[in-house]
Amino acid sequence: MLLNQSSYFCPTQIVLGEGCFRQLPSLLAEKQARRVLFVVDPALKKQEFVQEIQKEMDNLGVKFAVHAEVSPDPMDTEVSNALEVSESIGADLVLGVGGGSALDVAKAVAIVATNGGRIHDYTGIRMFATPPLPLIALPTTAGTGSEVSGSCVITDTESGMKMSIRHAELNPARVAILDPLVLASLPVSVACHSALDAFVHAFESYISRNSNPVTDGVNLHAIRLITDNIRPFVANRSNSHAALNMLCGSNMAGMTFGQTGLGNVHCMARFIGARYHLSHGLSNALCLPVVARYNMIASPERYAQVAKAMGCQIEGLSVLEAAELAIDAIEALCIDLGIPRHLAEVGVKEGDIDELADLCAEAGYDRWNPRSTTRNDFVNLFKAAL
Amino acid sequence: MLLNQSSYFCPTQIVLGEGCFRQLPSLLAEKQARRVLFVVDPALKKQEFVQEIQKEMDNLGVKFAVHAEVSPDPMDTEVSNALEVSESIGADLVLGVGGGSALDVAKAVAIVATNGGRIHDYTGIRMFATPPLPLIALPTTAGTGSEVSGSCVITDTESGMKMSIRHAELNPARVAILDPLVLASLPVSVACHSALDAFVHAFESYISRNSNPVTDGVNLHAIRLITDNIRPFVANRSNSHAALNMLCGSNMAGMTFGQTGLGNVHCMARFIGARYHLSHGLSNALCLPVVARYNMIASPERYAQVAKAMGCQIEGLSVLEAAELAIDAIEALCIDLGIPRHLAEVGVKEGDIDELADLCAEAGYDRWNPRSTTRNDFVNLFKAAL
Repeated sequence: MLLNQSSYFCPTQIVLGEGCFRQLPSLLAEKQARRVLFVVDPALKKQEFVQEIQKEMDNLGVKFAVHAEVSPDPMDTEVSNALEVSESIGADLVLGVGGGSALDVAKAVAIVATNGGRIHDYTGIRMFATPPLPLIALPTTAGTGSEVSGSCVITDTESGMKMSIRHAELNPARVAILDPLVLASLPVSVACHSALDAFVHAFESYISRNSNPVTDGVNLHAIRLITDNIRPFVANRSNSHAALNMLCGSNMAGMTFGQTGLGNVHCMARFIGARYHLSHGLSNALCLPVVARYNMIASPERYAQVAKAMGCQIEGLSVLEAAELAIDAIEALCIDLGIPRHLAEVGVKEGDIDELADLCAEAGYDRWNPRSTTRNDFVNLFKAAL
Repeated sequence: MLLNQSSYFCPTQIVLGEGCFRQLPSLLAEKQARRVLFVVDPALKKQEFVQEIQKEMDNLGVKFAVHAEVSPDPMDTEVSNALEVSESIGADLVLGVGGGSALDVAKAVAIVATNGGRIHDYTGIRMFATPPLPLIALPTTAGTGSEVSGSCVITDTESGMKMSIRHAELNPARVAILDPLVLASLPVSVACHSALDAFVHAFESYISRNSNPVTDGVNLHAIRLITDNIRPFVANRSNSHAALNMLCGSNMAGMTFGQTGLGNVHCMARFIGARYHLSHGLSNALCLPVVARYNMIASPERYAQVAKAMGCQIEGLSVLEAAELAIDAIEALCIDLGIPRHLAEVGVKEGDIDELADLCAEAGYDRWNPRSTTRNDFVNLFKAAL
């Protein structure tokens, strides 16, 4: 593909609004689901809406089997166990309810169910050919965007490495149900960290080298929705207006990053998350301010647009002055949400930086990150964040 | 569906960038196309890029048959003739190249080819059940958004009425190729009228009663892209930067209006277009300023956002003051592009208004138009536009 050519693709149908999870029976009927593998985050099993969904499936005469073994960094063993459950009822559809981890397990099993083998076989981009089982995804965080993104991340328990399985055209997620009511009981730390993950998706996708006018519009609106709603949402997850806007924002960010790629925040976060056992969202939030500052000189105009989308008053300012406001606004966001200001506070040691920088330099995010970044730049970024 | 619930769905893969029509061979190979029905606007048959496409299909060993019978308001007879061509080679894919008319014929034949019968049988919403032949669409206007919208409009030659065939989930358009190079030879009037059609899609979809946070983001960016690029694009269609942004803007507007519905501009334009044989784009442009003024009181906040997206300085203004700026900006747009300021200039007679208002009042656009509109309101709108 030529450098000035790009793409956008989101084949998932988005259903949204307060109480829209009650459209599930008609969606299952529309998809002619008869036997459903129900992948659900174990923490949600007793929630009223989960009970209601199961009752509705009973009423519909839809046979279903529950798989509720999902850990925060979902593992290959969970996928193979889910596959056994799926095969035990001959599932023709997967219903995933939970955060990014539950939805990633649901996607992975949908892929293996029709393609055979094990999920390891499909690591990489477009490594499977048979359309997976259709997935209806009900995200309960806002969020990873996993309900629309064409990828899932599963940990290989033998190597300890995370495998990324990506296929935009054969994305199992056929329907995403964005219902703010199911977010009401979200713990504050999960709400906060997953919301910042969503912000980072939109931000890094917007400033990516691979962005295009379509992804720009989607990402700028995601930044706007998230910035306007993240504080009231984290403060009170039962604020359903804020929660719906957060779901829409995280969803829109999820529509684009598979096409544009992400940047240094995700790169650094990936390795500190694995090394210090931090959640993906928190890892991202910790690296965000220093990377935002570092990348600015690569595209001050884009930063000025970010500032505008974040509600900063940029009229009468130079592009560089406006760009600085974006960095300030990002820092203020992390401070308001109580993100530790130093990596040392979560256990990162100065002595580990060389090794972390090696990993980052090898990971190849320079394809997408707007500013070129050497190994030494990564050392400096980690030191600045320490 | 409950009133506060809504949806967004665009299953079409968007490929975009200067020269990206040259990705067509790899896209055909990816879709495993062997026998292609090539629907092309007759005005484009001799264009170099059309010749190049045909040569590439020959090189690929893809068998194809050309259907180049497409009129500005495409007719059922053109669809049935295209179907004969399709059946003569046993087409497994449709390639559509042209403006909204050519793409609508391409969609219609894709539907009839797999569902049987004739296109009349599928008038309405979700009236067919078999997935149509896949369509790869290369729009040569910016434009109708037909390359992504889940609908096509075909004239019933017996009744003279336009039939609308709509099915978001089974949209034949699988790939849309947005290449500014193919717009370079567009006549200025077609460029201008189709560009204003795109603007009206984004505007009416944004202020629709059925809008939601996802469609809002897509539409606001479409308004931004179109407003920033429509003048330089109409002035010079070989300005490929402006043309690509226009293609993206019209495309984004096409992603949403099937979900949100449109409003009084489209309603009035539909009947004056049919009565006075005006193009769809010109009909819309003629009705836009009066309807924009009429609808403002229904949602001043949204108009203020439109003003902002159109580049107006709204800081320090009240919502109503900002909303007025949107109306002014829309009027200025129509004036700059040389749209006649009075319906009388295109032949509309005062004596026809009662009948036109009857048709509008019966057409049911109040489901989507933000301000309730009686038959008498339509009379006044036509009089104001006369």
